[in-house]
Amino acid sequence: MGVPDTGDTAWMLASAALVLLMTPGLAFFYGGMTRSKSVLNMMMMSMSALGLIGVLWVLFGYSMAFGNDVGLGLLGNPFEHLGLSGLFGGQYLEGDAGEAVSIPLVNTIPATVFAAFQAMFAIITVALISGAAADRLRFGPWLAFAGIWATVVYFPVAHWVFSFDGVTAETGGWIANNLAAIDFAGGTAVHINSGAAALALCLVLGKRRGWPREPMRPHNLTLVMLGSGLLWFGWFGFNAGSAVAADGVAGITFVNTLVATSAGMLGWLLTERFRDGKPTSLGAASGVVAGLVAITPSCSSVSPVGAIAVGAIAGVVCALAVGLKFRLGFDDSLDVVGVHLVGGMIGTLLVGLFATDSTPGGVNGLFYGGGFDQLWRQAVGGFAVLIYSFVLSIVIAYLVKATFGLRATDEAEVGGMDESEHAESAYDFSTLRVGGGLGSHRPIVTPGGTDREPQVTATTSKEG
Amino acid sequence: MGVPDTGDTAWMLASAALVLLMTPGLAFFYGGMTRSKSVLNMMMMSMSALGLIGVLWVLFGYSMAFGNDVGLGLLGNPFEHLGLSGLFGGQYLEGDAGEAVSIPLVNTIPATVFAAFQAMFAIITVALISGAAADRLRFGPWLAFAGIWATVVYFPVAHWVFSFDGVTAETGGWIANNLAAIDFAGGTAVHINSGAAALALCLVLGKRRGWPREPMRPHNLTLVMLGSGLLWFGWFGFNAGSAVAADGVAGITFVNTLVATSAGMLGWLLTERFRDGKPTSLGAASGVVAGLVAITPSCSSVSPVGAIAVGAIAGVVCALAVGLKFRLGFDDSLDVVGVHLVGGMIGTLLVGLFATDSTPGGVNGLFYGGGFDQLWRQAVGGFAVLIYSFVLSIVIAYLVKATFGLRATDEAEVGGMDESEHAESAYDFSTLRVGGGLGSHRPIVTPGGTDREPQVTATTSKEG
Amino acid sequence: MGVPDTGDTAWMLASAALVLLMTPGLAFFYGGMTRSKSVLNMMMMSMSALGLIGVLWVLFGYSMAFGNDVGLGLLGNPFEHLGLSGLFGGQYLEGDAGEAVSIPLVNTIPATVFAAFQAMFAIITVALISGAAADRLRFGPWLAFAGIWATVVYFPVAHWVFSFDGVTAETGGWIANNLAAIDFAGGTAVHINSGAAALALCLVLGKRRGWPREPMRPHNLTLVMLGSGLLWFGWFGFNAGSAVAADGVAGITFVNTLVATSAGMLGWLLTERFRDGKPTSLGAASGVVAGLVAITPSCSSVSPVGAIAVGAIAGVVCALAVGLKFRLGFDDSLDVVGVHLVGGMIGTLLVGLFATDSTPGGVNGLFYGGGFDQLWRQAVGGFAVLIYSFVLSIVIAYLVKATFGLRATDEAEVGGMDESEHAESAYDFSTLRVGGGLGSHRPIVTPGGTDREPQVTATTSKEG
Repeated sequence: MGVPDTGDTAWMLASAALVLLMTPGLAFFYGGMTRSKSVLNMMMMSMSALGLIGVLWVLFGYSMAFGNDVGLGLLGNPFEHLGLSGLFGGQYLEGDAGEAVSIPLVNTIPATVFAAFQAMFAIITVALISGAAADRLRFGPWLAFAGIWATVVYFPVAHWVFSFDGVTAETGGWIANNLAAIDFAGGTAVHINSGAAALALCLVLGKRRGWPREPMRPHNLTLVMLGSGLLWFGWFGFNAGSAVAADGVAGITFVNTLVATSAGMLGWLLTERFRDGKPTSLGAASGVVAGLVAITPSCSSVSPVGAIAVGAIAGVVCALAVGLKFRLGFDDSLDVVGVHLVGGMIGTLLVGLFATDSTPGGVNGLFYGGGFDQLWRQAVGGFAVLIYSFVLSIVIAYLVKATFGLRATDEAEVGGMDESEHAESAYDFSTLRVGGGLGSHRPIVTPGGTDREPQVTATTSKEG
Repeated sequence: MGVPDTGDTAWMLASAALVLLMTPGLAFFYGGMTRSKSVLNMMMMSMSALGLIGVLWVLFGYSMAFGNDVGLGLLGNPFEHLGLSGLFGGQYLEGDAGEAVSIPLVNTIPATVFAAFQAMFAIITVALISGAAADRLRFGPWLAFAGIWATVVYFPVAHWVFSFDGVTAETGGWIANNLAAIDFAGGTAVHINSGAAALALCLVLGKRRGWPREPMRPHNLTLVMLGSGLLWFGWFGFNAGSAVAADGVAGITFVNTLVATSAGMLGWLLTERFRDGKPTSLGAASGVVAGLVAITPSCSSVSPVGAIAVGAIAGVVCALAVGLKFRLGFDDSLDVVGVHLVGGMIGTLLVGLFATDSTPGGVNGLFYGGGFDQLWRQAVGGFAVLIYSFVLSIVIAYLVKATFGLRATDEAEVGGMDESEHAESAYDFSTLRVGGGLGSHRPIVTPGGTDREPQVTATTSKEG
Repeated sequence: MGVPDTGDTAWMLASAALVLLMTPGLAFFYGGMTRSKSVLNMMMMSMSALGLIGVLWVLFGYSMAFGNDVGLGLLGNPFEHLGLSGLFGGQYLEGDAGEAVSIPLVNTIPATVFAAFQAMFAIITVALISGAAADRLRFGPWLAFAGIWATVVYFPVAHWVFSFDGVTAETGGWIANNLAAIDFAGGTAVHINSGAAALALCLVLGKRRGWPREPMRPHNLTLVMLGSGLLWFGWFGFNAGSAVAADGVAGITFVNTLVATSAGMLGWLLTERFRDGKPTSLGAASGVVAGLVAITPSCSSVSPVGAIAVGAIAGVVCALAVGLKFRLGFDDSLDVVGVHLVGGMIGTLLVGLFATDSTPGGVNGLFYGGGFDQLWRQAVGGFAVLIYSFVLSIVIAYLVKATFGLRATDEAEVGGMDESEHAESAYDFSTLRVGGGLGSHRPIVTPGGTDREPQVTATTSKEG
């Protein structure tokens, strides 16, 4: 209880809104990468996470993550804050006009704001998984998987990583307090966690029909770029908001979140340039995400120059890692493993190398004379989440498969998930009329025909 | 006059920006739902509200809404703050560096920030109406309707609902002060108000040619999803910004705005699932908006669990309500009535049931032992705005019809409003060349042909 | 060193994020205006600025702009803050919980936050230039131009305009301190600067093949609208964030940024209406940008009514100015000169006319009895930047042309830059199947055929 700091509260309100926007951003990032017959289904997996996980979080998720530990740092008490009880109260109106009013706080901000901010983390972590399941996972089973996964994987792991002793409860989680691994904004709890679940889900689900033989090109790269832009924008709330204050910690994490992402993009583009000959827009968007993922755990413990290194390494390594699925034969359709699992692990481990005690992290990594102490803590934290999430996700996926089934019929997959799952199609340009808009109103060019596009008619011309 | 609180000001600056973004968000939400021949016209109705109402608000709208009451709580003095006079002044530079400077305030924030925040409300309320007029209302008459409606309907109603005695003026509006209905962020002033105007406008305007016989499918559901995402994001500024502070009130309204919307989405999707067999992306986006609308008046007076109830009820009822137009025969093209009028009324009335005095609203509704006292206040407030807006809107619409005309010619409507009103067409893919991009560069599949899509050529292939 | 104000810091964190979003916003604004064969290349020029300039800024750009002046107000010391050294430090953890901690500040905010905020300015200024080079500038040479231009043009000019004595360094730049021209948020440093560079670049680069004979219509006007919406949203951070505080200065700049933009849109639409007969969505989007550009230097020194005048003048003049390229024969493809150079000059000069000392600017312009004193300062500042940027840009463009080459081959230009530079194409609708989606699944209408669109099948129908 106490009087909130308005400045810290202002930033956390803005941050919570920013992180909410990341999930629609992810829907565009993923949706643009799918084929046009399944884009809505892809976006619906992200959007439905906003619906389902938002409600579960308020009902019992917050309490499982931030309630008082039930033992060994493994889980918060699910009944402590059912329906966010205890986080708000009748005290708002006790004060006269202008008089300070005491309300439940987390650090210096209202507890409700902290709960809302953390809700967004739960939502997007679940949504991230869906990228591995593009074009073939049915919508109902997705909801079942998402709800169970959030409950038995995310809420506990968030407790492990984000619940510090004495902040929202007397005793918190084991990674934050006992292991003392540094994961400022969720490299383990969000990215390794969702990446491992994605791997499990796509293994149980099986490959898309025709993969990897048939090309499955992104149907709308402007949507992908939009998604990456909104993700970057929202990620400032994700990372700098994890300071839970508008202070110098938020400042250094903010600037690191900028420059690591810049470097991640450059790293990915250079890798493409040297490997494939040409840098792509899909690569730029992917490099942005790789840089963001890697700087997430490390943004509070590396210098801006260290952040450039973290981002660049992530950009290069993730650009190489996304090719693994073709060699190993798992259809992680939109590269959740290659970007989030690999990128999250890179960022988590690099804390052990690049951390410097001139930052809020306050620890020196191997390269700054701190030896291996922080590195092994990071490795234990990262692999613990990886293993827990992967094993539980396999179990949940088989459970859902056995009860509801997971996968669309072959016919539905070929026809498109938008039609079969949602009775919709994403685009309908049939009424577009001005010359050049679509083939039907201009001379049809036969394949292999002239190199020049047909002359379009002027904008103002009328037909018919 | 006084020294602003920087934290409250920071949140209100961010909130005002967030609410501005809602109008482009609405343009995408609406634009995606129209046919591809009229999308620009649809978007221009929202965009032009940003132009026209922004200017009118600064000139005299703010003064009509927040100037001192001219009598009976019906209208603010239009001449008190012409051009925002009195809200800023030469005092910025009086203080030395670091010294506190006294400026005109509203509560703890600069009066200019409050004026900007409220400007966004006026803008989006006008833009909301346009959804009823898709595909047939000419652009010039829209501007005339919009300008007159803002002046004689919105500015006064905003005074009724948002002008509290002693905040921006000594005496404010009758709903806020005399009736004491609770409308935290505009269920009456924004949603019932625009929904009633939309009903009036589409009745005067008449049905679209072919409606409801011909299917009029959304041309781009990714745009609809984008719109709903931006609306949700911006709505945090709308609702939590209505606290005019970064405090515990903003906190509880924020978390309620999250979870009611989540529940609204689930409610709409479940209704579709049971009624139609499949949940749609259009339904998810619509459920988001329905939940947001319903929690708008109630976000400060219900608990998070109450917010789930409010959102879920709105999702279900609005999903049913959008079918009314087919039965009753009014062409409310994009469901402004079914979502904003119905959803706004639901949210306004549910305050009377779900309000709890453990929230900043400080009132108990029927379900919390408060009896019918708040419920009748809510009903009077809601229906007063409904009737005022509907009657005035009918008059304005007929007036504009009699002077400028309202409706496009049949020829223009068939050919598309983008061409006839703006000499543009939204899309031109004619220069897209890589195989599979458009029909002209690959074998044309005849209707009813093969079930499989034609094999696309690889991305890097060159043609010609 | 000191303790940051949390409220000011909260607003500046939000502002920095808002300004970041402007560059993706610009990518959509520009990308939507290009033809569909070159949209990715256009967007990549903006996105790559986020990558390249973000890294350069952290390495030495900040230091060149905000380090202590090396003489005559022309340049900051590039070595003073290499890698942002000196802007952060180990002091974060010195304080006990709840105790104030002293960190490096700029005014009342952490120095890292100021550095991040200003990084976004450098990035978008570079990105703005690319609009003049649509459809023909190769990606590698663009990066070379961008990196050199940022280093020898932007970083010094930012020092001239934005580095005030005693803020980040003892001695700052000549325009801010010696000339005392008013450029609140970058009319000279950002808009005149990028506009002059755009003119230089398109002169050296030459016209697009077929220009101006062949029509080159925007391929996706919904993207253009999205871009303008995101730009407006982000611009509140740009302008009101330039107050570097959440105070009354931010308040008046915010409301001016709203209403000038509204007026800019109306001005452009009216010009189109009277000149061409119809107001267009491209005009609305362009008017938004013109209004934003013009109010950028002037937002702190004019009243809201003055802001309406500034915006309206910019809307009208820029709408006329974009026609100049056809008469003068330079292919400034997306009108960087007509909007940013002309609009930036208008806004810079109008300070000399409309400034009023009842605003934070504290100066009276010609129309407020202040004579010509401020006007000549504005003119000197504006033209100095114009000339410096234009001359250096010509030199850099020729340098890059001589070493890497600038322009794509004729074959690549005809085939599209997306294919030739990035081995991608923006859209692939080939798998879209529901009737009416694309030509291949419905009766093909021959050109000049029936006026009515073919009857689309209902959403839920299945084919094949």
